[in-house]
Amino acid sequence: MINIAIIGAGRIGHVHARALGARDDVTLTLVCDPFEQNARALAEKYHVKYCLDPDEVFDDATVDAVVIGSPTQFHVDHILKAVNSGKRVMCEKPIALDLESAKRCIDELGDRADHVMMGFNRRFDPTFSALKDRLDDGEIGDLQQLTVVSRDPAAPPASYIAGSGGIFKDMTIHDFDMVRNFLGDIAEVNAVGTNVSPEIAEQGDFDQVIVTLKSRDGKLATIINSRTCAFGYDQRIEAFGADGMLSADNLTATAVRKATSTQTEAKTAVMDFFLERYEDAYRIELDAFLDSITIGGAVCPSVRDGYQALVLAEAAARSAKEHRAVTV
Amino acid sequence: MINIAIIGAGRIGHVHARALGARDDVTLTLVCDPFEQNARALAEKYHVKYCLDPDEVFDDATVDAVVIGSPTQFHVDHILKAVNSGKRVMCEKPIALDLESAKRCIDELGDRADHVMMGFNRRFDPTFSALKDRLDDGEIGDLQQLTVVSRDPAAPPASYIAGSGGIFKDMTIHDFDMVRNFLGDIAEVNAVGTNVSPEIAEQGDFDQVIVTLKSRDGKLATIINSRTCAFGYDQRIEAFGADGMLSADNLTATAVRKATSTQTEAKTAVMDFFLERYEDAYRIELDAFLDSITIGGAVCPSVRDGYQALVLAEAAARSAKEHRAVTV
Amino acid sequence: MINIAIIGAGRIGHVHARALGARDDVTLTLVCDPFEQNARALAEKYHVKYCLDPDEVFDDATVDAVVIGSPTQFHVDHILKAVNSGKRVMCEKPIALDLESAKRCIDELGDRADHVMMGFNRRFDPTFSALKDRLDDGEIGDLQQLTVVSRDPAAPPASYIAGSGGIFKDMTIHDFDMVRNFLGDIAEVNAVGTNVSPEIAEQGDFDQVIVTLKSRDGKLATIINSRTCAFGYDQRIEAFGADGMLSADNLTATAVRKATSTQTEAKTAVMDFFLERYEDAYRIELDAFLDSITIGGAVCPSVRDGYQALVLAEAAARSAKEHRAVTV
Amino acid sequence: MINIAIIGAGRIGHVHARALGARDDVTLTLVCDPFEQNARALAEKYHVKYCLDPDEVFDDATVDAVVIGSPTQFHVDHILKAVNSGKRVMCEKPIALDLESAKRCIDELGDRADHVMMGFNRRFDPTFSALKDRLDDGEIGDLQQLTVVSRDPAAPPASYIAGSGGIFKDMTIHDFDMVRNFLGDIAEVNAVGTNVSPEIAEQGDFDQVIVTLKSRDGKLATIINSRTCAFGYDQRIEAFGADGMLSADNLTATAVRKATSTQTEAKTAVMDFFLERYEDAYRIELDAFLDSITIGGAVCPSVRDGYQALVLAEAAARSAKEHRAVTV
Repeated sequence: MINIAIIGAGRIGHVHARALGARDDVTLTLVCDPFEQNARALAEKYHVKYCLDPDEVFDDATVDAVVIGSPTQFHVDHILKAVNSGKRVMCEKPIALDLESAKRCIDELGDRADHVMMGFNRRFDPTFSALKDRLDDGEIGDLQQLTVVSRDPAAPPASYIAGSGGIFKDMTIHDFDMVRNFLGDIAEVNAVGTNVSPEIAEQGDFDQVIVTLKSRDGKLATIINSRTCAFGYDQRIEAFGADGMLSADNLTATAVRKATSTQTEAKTAVMDFFLERYEDAYRIELDAFLDSITIGGAVCPSVRDGYQALVLAEAAARSAKEHRAVTV
Repeated sequence: MINIAIIGAGRIGHVHARALGARDDVTLTLVCDPFEQNARALAEKYHVKYCLDPDEVFDDATVDAVVIGSPTQFHVDHILKAVNSGKRVMCEKPIALDLESAKRCIDELGDRADHVMMGFNRRFDPTFSALKDRLDDGEIGDLQQLTVVSRDPAAPPASYIAGSGGIFKDMTIHDFDMVRNFLGDIAEVNAVGTNVSPEIAEQGDFDQVIVTLKSRDGKLATIINSRTCAFGYDQRIEAFGADGMLSADNLTATAVRKATSTQTEAKTAVMDFFLERYEDAYRIELDAFLDSITIGGAVCPSVRDGYQALVLAEAAARSAKEHRAVTV
Repeated sequence: MINIAIIGAGRIGHVHARALGARDDVTLTLVCDPFEQNARALAEKYHVKYCLDPDEVFDDATVDAVVIGSPTQFHVDHILKAVNSGKRVMCEKPIALDLESAKRCIDELGDRADHVMMGFNRRFDPTFSALKDRLDDGEIGDLQQLTVVSRDPAAPPASYIAGSGGIFKDMTIHDFDMVRNFLGDIAEVNAVGTNVSPEIAEQGDFDQVIVTLKSRDGKLATIINSRTCAFGYDQRIEAFGADGMLSADNLTATAVRKATSTQTEAKTAVMDFFLERYEDAYRIELDAFLDSITIGGAVCPSVRDGYQALVLAEAAARSAKEHRAVTV
Repeated sequence: MINIAIIGAGRIGHVHARALGARDDVTLTLVCDPFEQNARALAEKYHVKYCLDPDEVFDDATVDAVVIGSPTQFHVDHILKAVNSGKRVMCEKPIALDLESAKRCIDELGDRADHVMMGFNRRFDPTFSALKDRLDDGEIGDLQQLTVVSRDPAAPPASYIAGSGGIFKDMTIHDFDMVRNFLGDIAEVNAVGTNVSPEIAEQGDFDQVIVTLKSRDGKLATIINSRTCAFGYDQRIEAFGADGMLSADNLTATAVRKATSTQTEAKTAVMDFFLERYEDAYRIELDAFLDSITIGGAVCPSVRDGYQALVLAEAAARSAKEHRAVTV
């Protein structure tokens, strides 16, 4: 039996707690959040203890593994303390807001970095992972171009933007990981940003970006992002290969279609938002993490992948600012 | 060079006249319609002669072939006169409104019936004929069930209904031919009719029918008809075979799709109506008729197919009236 | 807290047991199956007691509600005993294999019939129920025609067919309930059957049927069934209304599409089979049953709906046999 | 009656000649191609004269308008001579291979440039123009991001590449015009290129490029190009607006779909190649040109649009070479 603690009792904390219920070999035993109201709500729902100070988690010898969903600025500290106290760790993205901290984390972890999992949940989405598996099986020959469309239904409040590290580290980071997942190491990053939201522009951040990446072996990828999307959570991938194309459509809640005098085959609205769209992905992700504990072996994506995604985010930010390609 | 005359200068007459323009080996030379206004309009558009009396067509030795689009009650008379004066004939469906006349036509034609073509244009629709070809190529194994959905956008006026011979002979006749095209000879017909239109009910006709047919070798087909359809001209086929299914969707004018907050992937409206939806089919049909003249050989569908479709229409009418299966 | 017993520890028993886990207000306490191996397997999985004799369930005063998944011939007996011992009941379809038993059950239950739920799980499928809700909201005006396509991926073994009561009671029964759900009371049934399977023909049963139903207010419905379907579990509905059409497509496991030189937009295979396709439906169905206990009120569909579906199944069997419409 | 001459009797010459046949107010009177075999073939098909020297076209006072499909290096010369001899002109893209020649052309034409049409046929494609019209009608609010996917089924021979001016001027030029059509004036161009074809790499040209453009008012567009595409001629557009998205799918020859045990809803292959995919566009384009003569008014796109597209092509080439954004 694996005893799990969750640090961060927000929305994702609840998602992870619910997913734990599906396994017989794991027990949620402790919940931690500095906001007592949050900590208590989650703890009571699952009839477990809670604490306000993460050190109580690291000091609790009965805790085997920690799922870290604290604010990004604490990630490196929490990862290191958890690992140093002998616990297995899964941490939400991004690893940090600055490369220096991320580098320090990787360096201090050394070989142990291979066992610290980063929460790039989209790798575990059934549609995206099926697409990847079929690509790896050679169904469309060698991959040549990858297009990742990722648009959020609505922009977060200005206060969130301020501490987010910017769109590349906060939002595009998922897509950087996806591109690395498909294309491997990246050699060059080109980014262009713009604003439709004056509020976000005022913060010095973009709300729409397009990033073109070239891998070391010359493959191309495009990421198309927007902080707002009138039709919901637009999450699509197209993998263009030598022998064909595999594409991942948006998901809808039902398979109902409608025809009227002005249109036909209209599907219901796109699933909105990430907790709903990626509910399966979160569960399968947690399973992969737990399996890495019970079965053993390195995790994937690891904290090293988190670092590499951050490298791309920094490169993209520089590219967009300096209007030039940035070599990685 | 084949000299063609068109009898009936209505909408279909114009469609056929336009389609003739695509061939170098055929010339429209004469147009006939008892309504001088109609005859003149079509004739002037194509710079040809016109007449009001069909006998002038049959008596014109320079006319090689006749496309008959006169009202149904004249079909048998026009077919026989045209063939007897040595002309090749393509005639719009149905062959007649009563089986007796149709039978007389077939009998008098004898072997020549194989060269009189019936205008079941849907057999020539690129989508339906591609589906049929792929079925014949064995792509989905033996056909087991056929579903034909055929709904008109709007009911014709009551005056038309009165002289139409009823929905089975006027509308379902196309679908009976399609079922025969896919399933071969039919053994049993089951029909159920209903009304959403009080006007049509008053005429003693149905405006919605469902017909189930069983072929001699036990295959099943369903025809779903409606005189009205809010979303346009609903023309679909599903062929269910031992190894899979081939289906023919509705056509839309463009490939544009739309996503909003309430729906996604909405296609533009279904094509409406038959002149637009089946424009290619009319052209390819006429080509097949003309090729049968220049290249030789029997036509398909012939007037015999027209007779068989009428047999099914009569059987369906009896089945719906007597609430029982009718053996053919 | 509601204490639940499950009678019948087969596949559906496991589905229901799993679905119970999602609720905090219900506990599985007892499992019953005459085959000890089955009973023990399910009981051990959920750490509960088991018994071999259903009377132990009915005699257990701590059991509040019973989910009956026993073979059909025991349904009426189990329903009556459970209700008579004061328990709430949800029973798998069909209510019985003969109308007489079903009638006896309804009669003996009297008013209590409104609280005995029938397991027509498809009413609870998110896609079908969303379609129904939107129809009820008037999105496409009055319903005029309903098409239900229901094909199983593979025929059950001959031994199952023998005790199934025939395709109409065993398979079409779900579709009869769906038609009643959409059209209300049925006035006339027309059925045609055929065989592609010699084994099933030998048993005197059909393996493909088409049923046309007419409601009391003149609406039409078609059911298209096949015991086998090469492309999986074909479960679709089209509701054609005065102002448009709502249709329910098949579900696929992922939203991946593929394009090659010979095809485009190919989706992954259709979900196969009912445990997978209707997993959500089973869960929501059980929820509706449990809510009827905690919140109160009549259930829907009730055992009366089970009876009416059986009436249609008998009518269809007679119609197919006697080649005539059967008035209900 | 407008007398038309066609310069260049290749594939496009035939397409234009065929399209002329649909109009009553225009006559093809002269065909010109330095390769007599080509000139004669086209001339004989339409029973018109031919010449080998374009000057004979310009000197022929009976010729009212010229459709120029000569090799790109002659475009400017032919445009200027035709206009200077009082003829109306439609010229295939691109206007020239170097900006200097194009500039000279525009300058010499002066106001007459507004009446010289450039053959950016895709603007007239029914799907793309319907999408544009709906966008202009405000269906999805203000445009924010445009994605243009344009992949050719197979790369041209190395000999063609050599004289093509490079992928940006030869292939992407269509997409640059499309982006300008949607976004208006462009401020910045970012291009990245790569090679999957060693033959094309040897020529110093890319065979896959991704171009990101930013308009003067800050809107973003992405162009995704490939010289090869295993699944055919991939021609799609997505317009993402403040209130929704309009997208243009690929076209297929028929509306047949196929389901098997491994896939469902597979459509037939994508239309291949431009003569087939854009047949309607070529016809409507020519109509627009002819209407500009008979009805009067400036043409759109004009040779000025041809110049602007070339500006973007040059900027993209520089951007890809210098790994930096190029301001336009």
